[in-house]
Amino acid sequence: VERLFDGVREFRDNVFPERRERFEELAKGQNPRILFITCADSRVVPEMITQTEPGDLFVCRNIGNIVPAYGEMMGGVSAVVEYAVVALGVTDIVVCGHSNCGAMAGLIRDPAKLDNMPTVRSWLRNAHAARSVVEVLHPELEGDDKIQALVEQNVVTQLQHLSTHPAVAAGIASGRVELHGWVYDIETGSISLHDAAQGRMVPFEESQGLKRKANA
Amino acid sequence: VERLFDGVREFRDNVFPERRERFEELAKGQNPRILFITCADSRVVPEMITQTEPGDLFVCRNIGNIVPAYGEMMGGVSAVVEYAVVALGVTDIVVCGHSNCGAMAGLIRDPAKLDNMPTVRSWLRNAHAARSVVEVLHPELEGDDKIQALVEQNVVTQLQHLSTHPAVAAGIASGRVELHGWVYDIETGSISLHDAAQGRMVPFEESQGLKRKANA
Amino acid sequence: VERLFDGVREFRDNVFPERRERFEELAKGQNPRILFITCADSRVVPEMITQTEPGDLFVCRNIGNIVPAYGEMMGGVSAVVEYAVVALGVTDIVVCGHSNCGAMAGLIRDPAKLDNMPTVRSWLRNAHAARSVVEVLHPELEGDDKIQALVEQNVVTQLQHLSTHPAVAAGIASGRVELHGWVYDIETGSISLHDAAQGRMVPFEESQGLKRKANA
Amino acid sequence: VERLFDGVREFRDNVFPERRERFEELAKGQNPRILFITCADSRVVPEMITQTEPGDLFVCRNIGNIVPAYGEMMGGVSAVVEYAVVALGVTDIVVCGHSNCGAMAGLIRDPAKLDNMPTVRSWLRNAHAARSVVEVLHPELEGDDKIQALVEQNVVTQLQHLSTHPAVAAGIASGRVELHGWVYDIETGSISLHDAAQGRMVPFEESQGLKRKANA
Amino acid sequence: VERLFDGVREFRDNVFPERRERFEELAKGQNPRILFITCADSRVVPEMITQTEPGDLFVCRNIGNIVPAYGEMMGGVSAVVEYAVVALGVTDIVVCGHSNCGAMAGLIRDPAKLDNMPTVRSWLRNAHAARSVVEVLHPELEGDDKIQALVEQNVVTQLQHLSTHPAVAAGIASGRVELHGWVYDIETGSISLHDAAQGRMVPFEESQGLKRKANA
Amino acid sequence: VERLFDGVREFRDNVFPERRERFEELAKGQNPRILFITCADSRVVPEMITQTEPGDLFVCRNIGNIVPAYGEMMGGVSAVVEYAVVALGVTDIVVCGHSNCGAMAGLIRDPAKLDNMPTVRSWLRNAHAARSVVEVLHPELEGDDKIQALVEQNVVTQLQHLSTHPAVAAGIASGRVELHGWVYDIETGSISLHDAAQGRMVPFEESQGLKRKANA
Ligand SMILES: [Zn+2]
Ligand SMILES: [Zn+2]
Ligand SMILES: [Zn+2]
Ligand SMILES: [Zn+2]
Ligand SMILES: [Zn+2]
Ligand SMILES: [Zn+2]
Repeated sequence: VERLFDGVREFRDNVFPERRERFEELAKGQNPRILFITCADSRVVPEMITQTEPGDLFVCRNIGNIVPAYGEMMGGVSAVVEYAVVALGVTDIVVCGHSNCGAMAGLIRDPAKLDNMPTVRSWLRNAHAARSVVEVLHPELEGDDKIQALVEQNVVTQLQHLSTHPAVAAGIASGRVELHGWVYDIETGSISLHDAAQGRMVPFEESQGLKRKANA
Repeated sequence: VERLFDGVREFRDNVFPERRERFEELAKGQNPRILFITCADSRVVPEMITQTEPGDLFVCRNIGNIVPAYGEMMGGVSAVVEYAVVALGVTDIVVCGHSNCGAMAGLIRDPAKLDNMPTVRSWLRNAHAARSVVEVLHPELEGDDKIQALVEQNVVTQLQHLSTHPAVAAGIASGRVELHGWVYDIETGSISLHDAAQGRMVPFEESQGLKRKANA
Repeated sequence: VERLFDGVREFRDNVFPERRERFEELAKGQNPRILFITCADSRVVPEMITQTEPGDLFVCRNIGNIVPAYGEMMGGVSAVVEYAVVALGVTDIVVCGHSNCGAMAGLIRDPAKLDNMPTVRSWLRNAHAARSVVEVLHPELEGDDKIQALVEQNVVTQLQHLSTHPAVAAGIASGRVELHGWVYDIETGSISLHDAAQGRMVPFEESQGLKRKANA
Repeated sequence: VERLFDGVREFRDNVFPERRERFEELAKGQNPRILFITCADSRVVPEMITQTEPGDLFVCRNIGNIVPAYGEMMGGVSAVVEYAVVALGVTDIVVCGHSNCGAMAGLIRDPAKLDNMPTVRSWLRNAHAARSVVEVLHPELEGDDKIQALVEQNVVTQLQHLSTHPAVAAGIASGRVELHGWVYDIETGSISLHDAAQGRMVPFEESQGLKRKANA
Repeated sequence: VERLFDGVREFRDNVFPERRERFEELAKGQNPRILFITCADSRVVPEMITQTEPGDLFVCRNIGNIVPAYGEMMGGVSAVVEYAVVALGVTDIVVCGHSNCGAMAGLIRDPAKLDNMPTVRSWLRNAHAARSVVEVLHPELEGDDKIQALVEQNVVTQLQHLSTHPAVAAGIASGRVELHGWVYDIETGSISLHDAAQGRMVPFEESQGLKRKANA
Repeated sequence: VERLFDGVREFRDNVFPERRERFEELAKGQNPRILFITCADSRVVPEMITQTEPGDLFVCRNIGNIVPAYGEMMGGVSAVVEYAVVALGVTDIVVCGHSNCGAMAGLIRDPAKLDNMPTVRSWLRNAHAARSVVEVLHPELEGDDKIQALVEQNVVTQLQHLSTHPAVAAGIASGRVELHGWVYDIETGSISLHDAAQGRMVPFEESQGLKRKANA
């Protein structure tokens, strides 16, 4: 934890001064336009992979970038979604999964490993629909390939859950809110995006190309 | 959201290449030593204020940097805590509040604003003990001063909740896990730390001085 | 209740004998192919409006033909869905709303009427997303028109909830299960069907026409 | 599902026209006097076995004709009960079990079959009291006989649960609401009724005889 | 709290020595035959009003001598009931209400007083059925008379809840467990007992007389 | 249960008359200063071991003298705590464990014994943190010694849970409420008290000595 204190000192002495004005502005209030929901995984740093600044992303991080569907049992993620849409009026919500996700791996292999983590097991029930779909669509997959397929399907499943929240459903219907499904690849630093029309993840470059075409 | 795509491109083209080796290493797995729990607020970027790198911090972000006490109703934050301590074996857990927190403000002023955010209201019940304490200890406070006092007390309350989780309680008892309460000041970029012995928040510099003395 | 006893006698003496063979066959077990989820409303008789026989429809009836999304709090409807798909292997699931639905009316007008029905109010939270969408898409609607719009949107919302259930999600992915959204009009005896491609309800005849074209 | 569409057409073209007036009347509102709670089983058609018309029965159907006791966790069945008694003012509530019930069978034999149906298993906890009673009163029973005994006891247990709901308890106390426990036999088309005084199910005919005597 | 320490000293020095043998015996284990469920009220001392000794009564005390019905949400009282019947094999369960009960008063008058006690309000939902019955049966009652009627009805309601617990239901069916409803009158030190056959509370003496007659 | 009736008669005829005045006073209302939370165990009689009178102790008794932490799922114990602090204004809360506690034993040895007591098992989750601490601090302990260590640690854990309740947290902060952790030894009739400063249980006499010193 000493390293953390060194970092804090470094931030205050060298990083903060350069952005002092921006932070003084921010001290009065935030106005982020984007809600970014991703995994607690230490290798996924939302502000770094999007090269955004403090004030840009409202961020929710949990095990497996999960969004429980709206229902009777509302917890912390549902509170983030409600606050982001109703109080902050964000216009875009990104659900960002990532390669080599330990949570998705835990759902598939060695379920006994979850025996001493009952809360994690219970939390991952919110990804069971994704797992069921992968097992039906890709029965031949195993190991890392199956995990990767689950990472991708899980993003789609969580987008579906997201749209069961009243504020999100209303935002989509009115065109005020747009949902985005991403998968970040740690090894290459690249991102794939979910294309609802094609029903699959497409690489970032291809996605941008598709977009230009659609706008043309 | 276009800006986000520009950032993604910038990251992939210019930022990632410089750290390619580190990321290729990380692609095999993570081994963070620190669980960092902070607010979803867009102005609080954990990796920036601690000047840490991908792979260093396991991060949980929610409305009000809250940790529900261990009990019957286990959700996403409890899953993060369990995973961090049991599966990853982190050695330090930081609960980091921040100045001008909208969640803490929501608890105090204009409760009617929460009428159309029932899930947020319900979630903030986990900070009611902090509010009760502030109202008893500082009945004279109002406005921003009261919010700041609540921000600080809330960190202490969430540390108490944290220590009701079996894995954390065991980690503290054995000395394997240490808890830290921080408050980040957006305007000055400085951090205060909770000093359990004194029962108050002390500025970072003073805290480090105290530490050296204690070690001497 | 005397009339009920007369009906029971009538059934046993005159109706049952005509179908004795069929019932003796059914006494050994059921094998319905369709799960039919509709409102408890006394005017909606599933077997009558589909002219089906005992053994054909597995039926779930509740206030507002609601299917809570899959999550932590699983109740009776979720049990029906699971049993229908996993144990019975149904191939089609119909969610059937109806005109003049008291539950949908309760969501919109005179919310004070729900003050002495706290359980109904809580149950109807599962239709809040539908109400939010209607209010955003059709702010000009009032009275019966608004109720009718909510009846239709609610069917769509419940289909979305349905697809968050793991067994259903897997069934859709594999093509083994198909979902259908219906609205039954009490006054005319006609049915409209939800057309996912067009994102709207279409009259039964038109729907059948579309189908033939699609198959052509 | 084609057969369903044929049935819909048949209903609209041939069945509905004969009852057009009745339906036009019903389109304005419902006023059922009876709440009928029965199993989702496809072989149990409430309106057929009671020879009642649209508008007569407010119907709740779920796995095992279960009514959870009133408590903290109120779901769909509780909402039906509350709506039926408070909003509609029904005067009679029938809980109707049936022979060869798959839910009751699932409680007794081959519990492993429920391993892949966790929601059904959890739902059936509401019938555990019935099972405990059967095992104590009839330890000698096995197979179909035990299932039949459980079907009967389960109706009694659900009547007890029903009377823990405040609106029902008040209705019973004031004599405005009467509860009825039925078991429908699929093979013979006959019904047995629970006789509270004798603490057992009696065949329909005998029950009517008893009634006449009581009234004499 | 000083008085408490004086009492502890008095107990150890003067009361305990007289019963040393009994306590040394008890130190090896307990074998109570009776589960006694009563209010947390300081004026109701179960062992005093029954003149029983340590080891005789397994005791559960909560606000309003409440037993939630068996269901999805099992808490502390349900755990006591289960442990008493399954692990200890008690033969009798007493639910004992008392005159001037603050919990019952809270249900009836000045409901605003519960505004700052949300947990108590939620807990008292388990007595709503009793309140509904009193309001229907005795609409003319007010003030203390209404509270007393509610105290009595609440005992009956909690006995009904008790019998929804599987272990209790089985115990009653087999004759191994007997339920008793009592109301203790603080002012006179007398007890009334619920007579199921008559459906009313009868004074202790009368109750004993009835019993002798029944046995004669 | 006959013995119980004899006791009731004995109380009314011989014990009550001696205290008639006190009881007539109490009939008007209670004003206890102390909330006493202890196990349902038949060998622990709060009023006897503290030699207190009716009206002195507000008492909560459950399996394992447990206080669930404040959170979403508030039950009977939380209601007692809230009522005691908010409505009655108690100044001291005692959590009293005891030697040879069956609940603590159940947590450690023979967990299969809990297989037929699912509610008890679920309830005891509230003592898991205590068990985790004991297993880390005293890995060498077994049998009765381990149970005794768990009894002591459990009292500390429940005090922590207690202080997460808003009313209690406020009471501690303002100095209006004090918490006490006790363990009662059945065999010797003596009591140990938790000394927060030393982080251990100390015998009653020693505790009083420490107190006198602290006051000197
Ligand atoms: Zn991950
Ligand atoms: Zn904040
Ligand atoms: Zn309806
Ligand atoms: Zn059935
Ligand atoms: Zn009371
Ligand atoms: Zn104990």
